[in-house]
Amino acid sequence: MKVYETVYNYYLNLMKAGDLKAGSKMPSLRECEKVLNVSRTSVENGYLQLAADGYIYSVEKVGFFVTELAGRVGKQEEKKSTEKTINKYKFDLAIIGEDRQVSCLNLWRRYMKSALRQEDRLLSYSDYQGEKDLRKEIANYVRKRRNIICSEDDIVVGAGFQNLLQVLIALIPGEKTISFPTKDFFDGATTFRNAGFNVSYRNKESHVIYVTPSYMTKWGEVMTMQRRRELCDHALNNNHLIIEDDYQNEFVFSSKPTPSLYALTGGVNTAFLGSFSRVVLPSVRISFIILPKGVKEEYDKIKRAYNQTASKSEQIALAQFLRDGHLNRHIKKMRRLYEEKRSVMEQAINANLSGKGEMLIGESGMEIAIRMKDKSTFDKIIKQPVSVGILDNSHENSTILLSCSKIEIDKIDEAVTLLLGSKSK
Amino acid sequence: MKVYETVYNYYLNLMKAGDLKAGSKMPSLRECEKVLNVSRTSVENGYLQLAADGYIYSVEKVGFFVTELAGRVGKQEEKKSTEKTINKYKFDLAIIGEDRQVSCLNLWRRYMKSALRQEDRLLSYSDYQGEKDLRKEIANYVRKRRNIICSEDDIVVGAGFQNLLQVLIALIPGEKTISFPTKDFFDGATTFRNAGFNVSYRNKESHVIYVTPSYMTKWGEVMTMQRRRELCDHALNNNHLIIEDDYQNEFVFSSKPTPSLYALTGGVNTAFLGSFSRVVLPSVRISFIILPKGVKEEYDKIKRAYNQTASKSEQIALAQFLRDGHLNRHIKKMRRLYEEKRSVMEQAINANLSGKGEMLIGESGMEIAIRMKDKSTFDKIIKQPVSVGILDNSHENSTILLSCSKIEIDKIDEAVTLLLGSKSK
Repeated sequence: MKVYETVYNYYLNLMKAGDLKAGSKMPSLRECEKVLNVSRTSVENGYLQLAADGYIYSVEKVGFFVTELAGRVGKQEEKKSTEKTINKYKFDLAIIGEDRQVSCLNLWRRYMKSALRQEDRLLSYSDYQGEKDLRKEIANYVRKRRNIICSEDDIVVGAGFQNLLQVLIALIPGEKTISFPTKDFFDGATTFRNAGFNVSYRNKESHVIYVTPSYMTKWGEVMTMQRRRELCDHALNNNHLIIEDDYQNEFVFSSKPTPSLYALTGGVNTAFLGSFSRVVLPSVRISFIILPKGVKEEYDKIKRAYNQTASKSEQIALAQFLRDGHLNRHIKKMRRLYEEKRSVMEQAINANLSGKGEMLIGESGMEIAIRMKDKSTFDKIIKQPVSVGILDNSHENSTILLSCSKIEIDKIDEAVTLLLGSKSK
Repeated sequence: MKVYETVYNYYLNLMKAGDLKAGSKMPSLRECEKVLNVSRTSVENGYLQLAADGYIYSVEKVGFFVTELAGRVGKQEEKKSTEKTINKYKFDLAIIGEDRQVSCLNLWRRYMKSALRQEDRLLSYSDYQGEKDLRKEIANYVRKRRNIICSEDDIVVGAGFQNLLQVLIALIPGEKTISFPTKDFFDGATTFRNAGFNVSYRNKESHVIYVTPSYMTKWGEVMTMQRRRELCDHALNNNHLIIEDDYQNEFVFSSKPTPSLYALTGGVNTAFLGSFSRVVLPSVRISFIILPKGVKEEYDKIKRAYNQTASKSEQIALAQFLRDGHLNRHIKKMRRLYEEKRSVMEQAINANLSGKGEMLIGESGMEIAIRMKDKSTFDKIIKQPVSVGILDNSHENSTILLSCSKIEIDKIDEAVTLLLGSKSK
């Protein structure tokens, strides 16, 4: 996607969500530059495209304003997300949510109830670093799954990555430059930018390199072993810091091993980020960071300046849930289902694609992208009553993203056929 | 307390907690300067005092190291906090925790169970800003209790203040200077310092002024109406931003009104911070900020860069808990008990103090301070088997802090008598 399209999509999404309402003023070019960290030219081009498409209009010497059209886009989306979904879309291949068939909500409820009986713990405040029993279980978990040898003292628990990155930032000396894989990492980039970092993308010269080895693109490309080794060597030789965000590792379906960078470096110059939201429940916000080797003592000195954010009762429940082996069983169950769904979707796309575009498929996750052969095919397809993700809507490179994560398995074929619509019956 | 004593106490507490272990290296003078934001002289004096008391020793050209003595202090404290409490201390007037007599844990459990039944909501991610039903209830709550007129769109929910302050920082332009009441606000000061702010204390010239009007000192001094008006005028006239941390407002026992600064300014140049940890359960980490008037639209533009941290199930439970009026009833019950306990403690101190020092008592909270008449009296008293807080252990100004929040009401008199030990029986 071109940079100006990032600008375009960012504000169009805000309009759709109703956060930028008809009549309200758009941020100044300068603000936009700052928020999205893009060049003035890209901002101008993005705004011009929004204006060309009728979403904003310009008032001389004042700025840009959101039009009524944008307001209607927002309203349509609002309806879509509530009761009218069925009318507009017959199938949803856009939402990256959880399939109820493998939800562990019932089991989770039991563990929460048990946690809520721990009166002593609930009547006191949380540990700064996270509950100790949970950290012990996480250390076991990463030892088994990711070959990481660490103690509970190396682990910091928090609600989401942003708080954990704050702590990490306070512990890493050196040049304030960071590289992210793409502009999609808004939240992480914001955290670093607010801390005075210069943010760039896919830049090996940055002092800090943020990577998602198990999910390098939206269609699940996985970092090769060779690239992993090169990256580790590069970081060690240049004293760079790798932040390894292990997102989607549980759903890597390749047969090749995907060793963690943390294990490859022995934790030197590497921090490891993991989360339980994807594998337990989306509403359970418990993440953790494994600190790079050698900063634990520094962390002990500053930890009281960073309050714990994760819910204590959920931490207690998760520790017990891990101890009883439920997470490993649950992940196995999920993997089995998602692998099957993915393969059903792949077959359905293959059967229907016939020259309309090229399928992009990696080895992880529940998403497959289709780069359309031209814009008119793209335009036709997104008018079908099947909700899909849009990765790129440019003329040269229009690409959609299909997710099988939420849709029931026995509807995938029908949905894909309706979307791509060429199967002869 | 003198600044070097802040340094002294900070590191002594780390040793006691076992975070700085025997044999480990102390932070360099420069690191300490940075962490605590104090002058080099204060750091040096603090370290010298730690060395004089045998907690650290210096190795020429290398730095300071923690001694075995410090290790033992840590171990003693560790024992104290676990099973040996009863042996060492007969009573605990140090812990600021919750009295089980008024705990709402049973009720809270019911609401959590109900929240855990909301399958749809638990299988999806949280709202960036916080659950909408909760924000509506918070808007009702602050209207009734703090005279604040705002909509749910002005409210951002989060797990603790640090995340909420991050959001606020991204929304406030102008000079990056902030003033805190005292050095006790480590976490808040760290958040601002990491964002490039210059932190000072009780400095009216700062662009941002952080205040806790209902709990200005550890012994519960409450900001007078006159001071409130002056502060609001000052902020409006100079275009400063007030951050009003409403801590302990529920436990202001004075008969005088304590209007919120947010209400006094109509929300202009004022942000309001509230938390439910103190009034629901210590383990429930749900806080909120009411944004200053006029920044809501800006917030809508940036909100996707700041992830929600508060537990979704706890947010759902709290919304229902508020809607059913439980919090107001619960606060009433707590106020009644704590007011009585406070008065029992005040009487007990009065009956036993007889020239040993001066009682410092404000109008809020569950704490009373005693400024001892001299250091030898202080030393004798802290050797009693009653755990107390130490506000200041300097020769000139030794002060202890007694809290009646956790101890049962019928033990307060015995504990204070044992501590101050002069009642003739």
